Amino acid sequence: MLIVMRPDATPQDIEQVNAEIRRRGWQPHAIPGGTRTAIGITGNRGVVEPEPFRVLPGVADAVLISQPFKLVSREVKPEDSKFQAGPLTLGGKTIHVIAGPSSVETRDQIVGTANGVKKAGATLLRGGAFKPHLSPYEFQGLKHDGLALLAEARRETGMPIVTEVKDTATLLQVAEVADVLLLGSRNMQNYALLEAVGEVRKPVILKRGISATLKEVLMAAEYIVARGNTRVILCERGIRTFETMTPNTLDLNAVPMLKSLSHLPVFVDPSHGIGMRKAVPALMRAAVAAGADGLLVQVHPDPPRAISDGHQTLDFPEFEKAMDEVRAIAGAIGRDVARLG
Amino acid sequence: MLIVMRPDATPQDIEQVNAEIRRRGWQPHAIPGGTRTAIGITGNRGVVEPEPFRVLPGVADAVLISQPFKLVSREVKPEDSKFQAGPLTLGGKTIHVIAGPSSVETRDQIVGTANGVKKAGATLLRGGAFKPHLSPYEFQGLKHDGLALLAEARRETGMPIVTEVKDTATLLQVAEVADVLLLGSRNMQNYALLEAVGEVRKPVILKRGISATLKEVLMAAEYIVARGNTRVILCERGIRTFETMTPNTLDLNAVPMLKSLSHLPVFVDPSHGIGMRKAVPALMRAAVAAGADGLLVQVHPDPPRAISDGHQTLDFPEFEKAMDEVRAIAGAIGRDVARLG
Amino acid sequence: MLIVMRPDATPQDIEQVNAEIRRRGWQPHAIPGGTRTAIGITGNRGVVEPEPFRVLPGVADAVLISQPFKLVSREVKPEDSKFQAGPLTLGGKTIHVIAGPSSVETRDQIVGTANGVKKAGATLLRGGAFKPHLSPYEFQGLKHDGLALLAEARRETGMPIVTEVKDTATLLQVAEVADVLLLGSRNMQNYALLEAVGEVRKPVILKRGISATLKEVLMAAEYIVARGNTRVILCERGIRTFETMTPNTLDLNAVPMLKSLSHLPVFVDPSHGIGMRKAVPALMRAAVAAGADGLLVQVHPDPPRAISDGHQTLDFPEFEKAMDEVRAIAGAIGRDVARLG
Amino acid sequence: MLIVMRPDATPQDIEQVNAEIRRRGWQPHAIPGGTRTAIGITGNRGVVEPEPFRVLPGVADAVLISQPFKLVSREVKPEDSKFQAGPLTLGGKTIHVIAGPSSVETRDQIVGTANGVKKAGATLLRGGAFKPHLSPYEFQGLKHDGLALLAEARRETGMPIVTEVKDTATLLQVAEVADVLLLGSRNMQNYALLEAVGEVRKPVILKRGISATLKEVLMAAEYIVARGNTRVILCERGIRTFETMTPNTLDLNAVPMLKSLSHLPVFVDPSHGIGMRKAVPALMRAAVAAGADGLLVQVHPDPPRAISDGHQTLDFPEFEKAMDEVRAIAGAIGRDVARLG
Repeated sequence: MLIVMRPDATPQDIEQVNAEIRRRGWQPHAIPGGTRTAIGITGNRGVVEPEPFRVLPGVADAVLISQPFKLVSREVKPEDSKFQAGPLTLGGKTIHVIAGPSSVETRDQIVGTANGVKKAGATLLRGGAFKPHLSPYEFQGLKHDGLALLAEARRETGMPIVTEVKDTATLLQVAEVADVLLLGSRNMQNYALLEAVGEVRKPVILKRGISATLKEVLMAAEYIVARGNTRVILCERGIRTFETMTPNTLDLNAVPMLKSLSHLPVFVDPSHGIGMRKAVPALMRAAVAAGADGLLVQVHPDPPRAISDGHQTLDFPEFEKAMDEVRAIAGAIGRDVARLG
Repeated sequence: MLIVMRPDATPQDIEQVNAEIRRRGWQPHAIPGGTRTAIGITGNRGVVEPEPFRVLPGVADAVLISQPFKLVSREVKPEDSKFQAGPLTLGGKTIHVIAGPSSVETRDQIVGTANGVKKAGATLLRGGAFKPHLSPYEFQGLKHDGLALLAEARRETGMPIVTEVKDTATLLQVAEVADVLLLGSRNMQNYALLEAVGEVRKPVILKRGISATLKEVLMAAEYIVARGNTRVILCERGIRTFETMTPNTLDLNAVPMLKSLSHLPVFVDPSHGIGMRKAVPALMRAAVAAGADGLLVQVHPDPPRAISDGHQTLDFPEFEKAMDEVRAIAGAIGRDVARLG
Repeated sequence: MLIVMRPDATPQDIEQVNAEIRRRGWQPHAIPGGTRTAIGITGNRGVVEPEPFRVLPGVADAVLISQPFKLVSREVKPEDSKFQAGPLTLGGKTIHVIAGPSSVETRDQIVGTANGVKKAGATLLRGGAFKPHLSPYEFQGLKHDGLALLAEARRETGMPIVTEVKDTATLLQVAEVADVLLLGSRNMQNYALLEAVGEVRKPVILKRGISATLKEVLMAAEYIVARGNTRVILCERGIRTFETMTPNTLDLNAVPMLKSLSHLPVFVDPSHGIGMRKAVPALMRAAVAAGADGLLVQVHPDPPRAISDGHQTLDFPEFEKAMDEVRAIAGAIGRDVARLG
Repeated sequence: MLIVMRPDATPQDIEQVNAEIRRRGWQPHAIPGGTRTAIGITGNRGVVEPEPFRVLPGVADAVLISQPFKLVSREVKPEDSKFQAGPLTLGGKTIHVIAGPSSVETRDQIVGTANGVKKAGATLLRGGAFKPHLSPYEFQGLKHDGLALLAEARRETGMPIVTEVKDTATLLQVAEVADVLLLGSRNMQNYALLEAVGEVRKPVILKRGISATLKEVLMAAEYIVARGNTRVILCERGIRTFETMTPNTLDLNAVPMLKSLSHLPVFVDPSHGIGMRKAVPALMRAAVAAGADGLLVQVHPDPPRAISDGHQTLDFPEFEKAMDEVRAIAGAIGRDVARLG
């Protein structure tokens, strides 16, 4: 159930609705819009009767939300969400490109990459400090030292930092440094982590699980938003199919589908998405043409020497050329690609 | 094995190589290129020794083909294939859009659709006369009458006709009318039909099976080309995944992958690809951005009244708008979209 | 719609119902049961009104069939189908095991295998004469000579022959020799072949496509039965999943599901099903425990030297041991495994 | 690398090997066997040279482990693992059946179910107290009260308790009550939880992720064993495929494959595996026939009234009948099904 307030509703009107919701043992969730506020209700068992709300002052309407995901659905908020991430505004017509290496390795590598991708037009820097890995014996990242190097790269370039949070134990440390948290695909249904991230006041990129349905992606986002963190970006990053020639299969159907179902920004990671370097630029272009609000791209000064993911990582010249194409595509559909000052 | 002839090789030189190949019980396949001819060898068991061929007059080199698909591979022919389809040239920088209804229904419907999609910029007309269906009790198409109506629409508009061939028994009838044959995804490994289509002198659009790997698509194309029909277009049309919100999942990874592995043109069918009308325009744009050489789009004057596939079919205004976007995207990456005179 | 006749209905009663159905432009399909006949109706558009049939003499009831598959559904015929295949009765409590090589290679090979598998307890001999293959350059089988060798093996051992039919052009030749036709997974939706097989008076094993849903399997069977050939066996033979360690994933869920939805016998092919020799015996046991009515198993005197499918083929000692286990499992669930005289 | 000690090696010999491994900055993992000890090495980068170890006293051999999973692989320990879970021994020839409801609901429900399933032959009681759910608004379990009720059911029946641990925050509470921890499929790659469970001294059932490859299952188990908890049971519980008629597809291929690759016990959960009540008994039989070492089955006194998973839950009569069949199947392949006192 969504209570839609009139444009001229007062704060007192809104508070009266909230109080009425709480009185029944439910939770109100204010969802501010361009011209008016809506209030979502969660915590109810069974159907919420609209009549008692419709008669309250300032209420324009009370509408049923048909989807199991509520706060993240377009039904609840028809216009696209936009929000701050460091100095930038994500969501909306302007496309942002996040670029950087899979793993933070050294100061030279991460600062060098930051300068390289900034020059090519990326606005945020990605780099892994805490790395989840298939094997307990693999490199797990530079951890705190990696975070410090990311912070240094930010100081040098002004680029906000995007880095993965892999568990609740390290969340606060990571959130202290990161401008945007990255929640990896293996953790998409790690509910304890979703809830913890929902309590943090940092934007989160939620990566789709490798075999998560679109509904499951939206339910995972609902976990975060229901805890109060509304700055969630949905991210398609490749699904698992029968194909063996590429590690993953990027699912660009997800872009128009998620955009139509949810008001949240939708980003695409073509690097993990196909897992094959030579095909990444074509899929960067396609993602933007499909309507993506942003891209995550793995870039490294010397991909064959990268500690991880070199096979799907672009070098600077490849990334620059791909960014030129991305800008041309964005222009062709009436959008633009952000640049740092 | 591929015998690459020198640019100045004479027809006699080529014939001598052919004779040498036949003498060993194998088959030669001449593959004409821009400046010189290459000759593929098939029918051998085990490895072909290059030395006996390298010493023949006019031979530049004899090279091993590492892939199981030979004649369709880029190794055999590095430049993109282009060929005639009616009055048009398919392949190359110019993108062609094939549009029309799932089923031919009436004279008014098909001629009206032809005029509508031509005006919006389609260059070929699609329409099903022989329709394969999941149920033996469903509508199987207007058959011969449908072909006659397609021919009439061609006379009225000058648009070449693309229509499905569903079995060997009706192949010749269909091939007599069609300018381009469409081989449906259920038939992608119907080897008798592939071989029969390989004997026909009409271009063929080979649709990927719903769970065919990229290698399997290329092996199916190899069946056709090995029989002498080199005018094959590969077509991505959606794969089967775990997602239940959409009937299919369009796999745009296939575009850069197939383009890198094969010299054949690659088309995309976003209508079947996702099976959901509202998402088709976004995927038309994405397919072109990914590098597709053409599109197949289902269009009908009144989709909700279409006999089949209405849920994934655009109406004229939707198609016109999508074509404007497709042209803008094509321009942004240095390509153009063909128009009929 | 299904017209259920009374146990005491006369042939004249049945003919009157048939005539009434035909008068409306539909087709009647008599479905003989243990104690009474039912008559399926196909060819109708829209709903069939039951009343005009309920008043005819000899009619017990007229019931709606809810599934898109009609003649093959349990709703139409609650008891298990049983039918003749050469001298044997397939379906029912007795389990039959079909064994033999992927390809017929030589007289010694096929007669030797027939003797070997008969001794171990197989009742039907399988062997491929016409072989569909991924590549146009691979061995396509001994064809007519292969059929002749199979006939010879039958003469020597009394084992009925099961062999693949790969296209309509060779169907009649194959049907002349085969006791049971095998329709391969790539042809499961080759409707021309399904219809042609529906006209032939030989039992057919219909293999599930590698990504066919259970509904699609039943619709394919419906094509055959609708043409008059009611002797259809459904066969699970492995589906395509994301797993890369085995070529296929045998889906034993299909056994209880198909048994509950259809009255047709359900066989299982664990050799193709997992595609890995060492795991075949475990899956033979599991298939029987799940309720399979028969098995197809690849057996060869010397698997590593088999022309095709050696990696998933048992030798005689492995097959004998597995058959002992299969008999024990069958006994444990109140079934038995057939033996030849 | 695996250092295999001679049967007569002394504790001092073993300690010397351990010291030598630690001296190089690696970790030794003692793997006790029937007649002799082996010592796994982890933490090395690059290849371990065997020579320096072969010359140490008590060392029989130093062998390379070819798989990325080490401590859980059959190469490291050829014989099946057996271990204690409460008063029971899991692994080996005797099959154990774990049964109970999806959610602990009330004292009567859980104690009643415990008595019911014990009578039918289950040896362990399952029941969810902390329940992960797709939606943040769904029932999340009775939590501590649920654990207390499970403990009460154990006191009443003597059945050890199996219950899910869903995150690190509640692990210790759960581990205090549970005899066996259940790690759910969504958490299969929750590395923080895997590592925490690796530190706990309770057996763990590790459920396969819905699209986890077999290699990924074994790598997840390796995380637990590498931390010192060797009592891990692998559990197949259904994968995600294209099929829409059933919620999941039980993959019984996993049983022979995992048994051949690993020494750990392999259990099967047919309830989640297919997600359809009527098909569960057939898959219980098939799992045992395929070689499963145990089963997890959802049972409830009144499945349609269960708070969760009623559609895949058996009632007592169904479970009793299925257990009779399971015992018969086990007997047929030379195994037995455990019973409590």
